[in-house]
Amino acid sequence: MKRLSLLLLLCLTAQAGCSKTEQQSHTRTEAQSQPQPRNIIFMIGDGMGPAYTSGYRYFVDNPETKEVDPTVFDRLLVGTASTYPDDDTYVTDSAASATALATGIKSFNGAIGVDTEQKPLQSLLKHAKRLGKNTAIVVTSELNHATPASFVAHNNSRGNKDAIANDFIDIKINNRPTVDLMLGGGQQYFQRRDRDILQEFRNLGYQSATELSQLENITGIPAIGVFADKGLARAIDSDTPQRLSHMTGAALALLKKHSGKAGFFLMIEGSQIDWCGHANDIACAMREMDDFARSIEIVEKFIQENPDTLLVLTADHSTGGLSLAADKEYLWRTEVIAQQRKSLAEFSRDLQSDADPGKSWQENFGYPLQAQELLALKESQASSEATYDAVVRISSRYSNTGWTTRGHDAVDVQVFAYGHGSELFRGFQDNTAISKKILQLMDGILTH
Amino acid sequence: MKRLSLLLLLCLTAQAGCSKTEQQSHTRTEAQSQPQPRNIIFMIGDGMGPAYTSGYRYFVDNPETKEVDPTVFDRLLVGTASTYPDDDTYVTDSAASATALATGIKSFNGAIGVDTEQKPLQSLLKHAKRLGKNTAIVVTSELNHATPASFVAHNNSRGNKDAIANDFIDIKINNRPTVDLMLGGGQQYFQRRDRDILQEFRNLGYQSATELSQLENITGIPAIGVFADKGLARAIDSDTPQRLSHMTGAALALLKKHSGKAGFFLMIEGSQIDWCGHANDIACAMREMDDFARSIEIVEKFIQENPDTLLVLTADHSTGGLSLAADKEYLWRTEVIAQQRKSLAEFSRDLQSDADPGKSWQENFGYPLQAQELLALKESQASSEATYDAVVRISSRYSNTGWTTRGHDAVDVQVFAYGHGSELFRGFQDNTAISKKILQLMDGILTH
Repeated sequence: MKRLSLLLLLCLTAQAGCSKTEQQSHTRTEAQSQPQPRNIIFMIGDGMGPAYTSGYRYFVDNPETKEVDPTVFDRLLVGTASTYPDDDTYVTDSAASATALATGIKSFNGAIGVDTEQKPLQSLLKHAKRLGKNTAIVVTSELNHATPASFVAHNNSRGNKDAIANDFIDIKINNRPTVDLMLGGGQQYFQRRDRDILQEFRNLGYQSATELSQLENITGIPAIGVFADKGLARAIDSDTPQRLSHMTGAALALLKKHSGKAGFFLMIEGSQIDWCGHANDIACAMREMDDFARSIEIVEKFIQENPDTLLVLTADHSTGGLSLAADKEYLWRTEVIAQQRKSLAEFSRDLQSDADPGKSWQENFGYPLQAQELLALKESQASSEATYDAVVRISSRYSNTGWTTRGHDAVDVQVFAYGHGSELFRGFQDNTAISKKILQLMDGILTH
Repeated sequence: MKRLSLLLLLCLTAQAGCSKTEQQSHTRTEAQSQPQPRNIIFMIGDGMGPAYTSGYRYFVDNPETKEVDPTVFDRLLVGTASTYPDDDTYVTDSAASATALATGIKSFNGAIGVDTEQKPLQSLLKHAKRLGKNTAIVVTSELNHATPASFVAHNNSRGNKDAIANDFIDIKINNRPTVDLMLGGGQQYFQRRDRDILQEFRNLGYQSATELSQLENITGIPAIGVFADKGLARAIDSDTPQRLSHMTGAALALLKKHSGKAGFFLMIEGSQIDWCGHANDIACAMREMDDFARSIEIVEKFIQENPDTLLVLTADHSTGGLSLAADKEYLWRTEVIAQQRKSLAEFSRDLQSDADPGKSWQENFGYPLQAQELLALKESQASSEATYDAVVRISSRYSNTGWTTRGHDAVDVQVFAYGHGSELFRGFQDNTAISKKILQLMDGILTH
C-alpha cells in the first residue's frame, strides 16, 4: 500500500500522461537492468549560498602559488536549485526548505515535515527505513533542529523543540525508531526533566555517548551520540574544529560495517554555516565551511571505494546576503579573515566587561584599531547589541566582506553530486525535485 | 603559423604530456568523425551574478499561479565559473574578466586583450575570423566598452576609449577589419572630430545605421550600427526596451543569410545589467535581464532550427552584492519592483529641481512615502549624490532588496550552454577554461 501511494505521488508530479500501471511496469524493467544505488548520502550545507563556496575557495587558497586550487565543491558541482517556500515571499526559512528537501513537497516557513495543510509528509529517510536500509543523521546543531527534524518529525512549528525531540523516539517504523544512528547536539531536549529520551533509546538497545571524545565507544548500530546541550561548539571556538568530519568518518565506518545488502541512508548537515551567516561572522562561516568540506572529502573517498553509493549535496538557502567585497573596493581580504581567533559572538561577549578592548581586538583579529574605531567600540560597550553591531561593522570593513541581512535571501543554491546516479542532478531544478529524484532512484523508478 | 602557435598554446594549457604533434594528429582524427560546431554564439550578461538570474525568475513569475515558472536561464544552466583576476584581490573588473573570456588568459583589472606583461592576446573572435567565419558583436554599451573591446582591441587601460575604438578598424585580418557586423552604441568614439571611424567603415564597404529604427536598412554584411552617443538608453527608460533582443534577431538573420559554410561567431552582451547593478537599481536590472532573456530565447530558437550551432552564456562577474531580501525580513517584493517606471538615475536627476518630490515619488514608484522618508528625501535635494543615496536607500527598503557595494564582488557566476558541444561546459570551471573550450571546439581539438 505504501509503495503504491508513493508511486502514485510520483505519477502526480511526473510528466503528463503517466499512469500508475505504466510507471510500475517501467520500474520493473529498468530496475532489472539498472540497479538503484545501495547507499544514499544526502549532505546539506545550511545557509551555504553560492558566495560561501566561492569564498571558501579563496579562503583556503595558498597565496604562495599563482593558481587558485579547486575545492571539493568545485569537483562535485553539477547544478543549482531554487529554494522558495510555498507562498509568495520567495525567501525560505530552514524548516520549509528542509521539508522540501526531506519530502519533495513545498511547505510554509516553520513547517517541520508537514504540508501546507499541516498533514504529515513522508520523508526520504523514512522511506529508506521501510526499504530496509540503515538510517543515520549527523549534524552539528541539536538533532531536533529544523533540518534534521524535517527528515524525522512532524510539527507545525520548528520552535516546538521538545515535541520534535519526542518524535525521534515516538514515531516508529516496524516497531523501531526511525533513525538507527544519530550524532549531533541537543542534550537539553533529549535529556529533559520531564522525559529522558536518551535513556529510552538506551532501553531500546541503542549504544550511546554524551561526549565527542567518547565517539569511539560506539561500536555498533543502533546508536545515539548527543554531544552538547544545544549545538556543538562553533568550529572557530572549538578545541576539536573538525567535529563534523570526525563524526562523518565514524558514521560511515559504522554504517559500512553494520548495513546489510539494503545499504544505508545518511543525512549530514553542516548546520552552523547558517548560524555564522546569521551572525554576519565570515571567519566563523569559513571555519564551518572547512569542517564541512573535509566531511565531503571523506564521503568522496568512501564513494571511490564504494561506487554503489550516491552523494547529493546542496544548501537549503543562503544566509546573510554575503558578498565577497563591499563598499566599491575590488578586494576580498582572506588573510584578515584567517587571522581571526574567536567567533564575533564569543569575542563580543567577552568584550562587554573588557577594560582594554583595543588590546583584545589586536589579539583576536591580528591588527590594531584606529583611534576612531576604538572610540566607537568603547562607546558600544554600553549594550551587548551595540557591541555586537560595532564588532561586525568594524571587522567586516577590514576583511571587506558585505552582508545585507541577519536573515536569509532568495538566491538559488548550488547542487553537487557524486557516484551512482549523480548525473541525474545536473542543471537547474527546484529543491523539491532533488528529493523526488532521490526517492525515484531509491525505488528504481529513475535510473542512471 | 598562427594555427600552430594556437595549438601550442592549447598544449601548454592542456593536460601534461601533450605535444604539438600529438595534438595535431588528434585534431585531424576527431575532426573527421565529430565535426566542430559551425556557428558559435557567446553571450555575456555583464554583472549577472547568481542573484540576478534567481531574482529574474521571481520578477517575471505570474503571481496568479501557484508554481514558479522556470526561465530560459533555468532551461540552459549547466555549471558555474570562477572569475578572479590575475592577482590576489579575487575581485575582477569587467576588463580582466572579458579578457579572460575572450582570450582564455587571466590578466589584470583594466586590461583589454593584453596579458599581465601587456602583450596582445589572441581572441576567440579573431580566431573565428581566421577560420573564415563571419564575426559579429551585439551590445547595449558602446562598442568599445570593456567586454566587446576585449574581443577586438589591445590596450593596457579600458579607459583609453578612443584608442580602443581605433583598434576596431586598424587591426586587420586578411586586410579587413576584425568584426563583420557590429551593433551597439558609442557614436562619440566612432564619429570623433579627430577621426570618423564610421565613415572609414563605410569607405571599406560597410553598410551603416545610426538610429535603431533604421536597423532594417542594414541588409547585408559587413555592416556597423552605432545607435547612441555612448550606451543605448536603459531598457527601463527606453521607448524600445527590447533593443538587445531586436538587434539579436536582426544579427542572426543577417548572419544566417550571409555566412558561408564556415558559419559565424557572434558575441552578444547584456551590457547594462552591470550598470544597473552599479547603480543599485533593482528595477533597472530586472528590465535589462528581461531584454537579455528575450535575446537568449531568440538564440535558443535559432539553435533549434540550426543545430550545428553552440551557445555558451555566462557572466563576467556579479555586481552590487545584490541579495533578494535584506534586514532580516524573509520577503522579496517583486510587485514593488515591477511598479517602478523610471530608473533611479533618471528619477533622481529630475528630483533635484522638483518642488513636490512626494508626488513624483508616488508617480514613479506607485506607493506614497512616509512623512519621515519624505523629509529625508527633501533634505537630500541639496546635493545630487545625497539625493541618489536617499533614493536608493528608500526604494531598496520598500522592495527589501540588499546591496553591499556600488562595485563588484567575487562570487562565482553561472554557465549556461545549448546546442552542439554544450555538454562540455557542465560543472565548475574557471572563466578562462570556457574560452579555451570554445577555442578547442572551433579547432576540432575538443569534440562532443
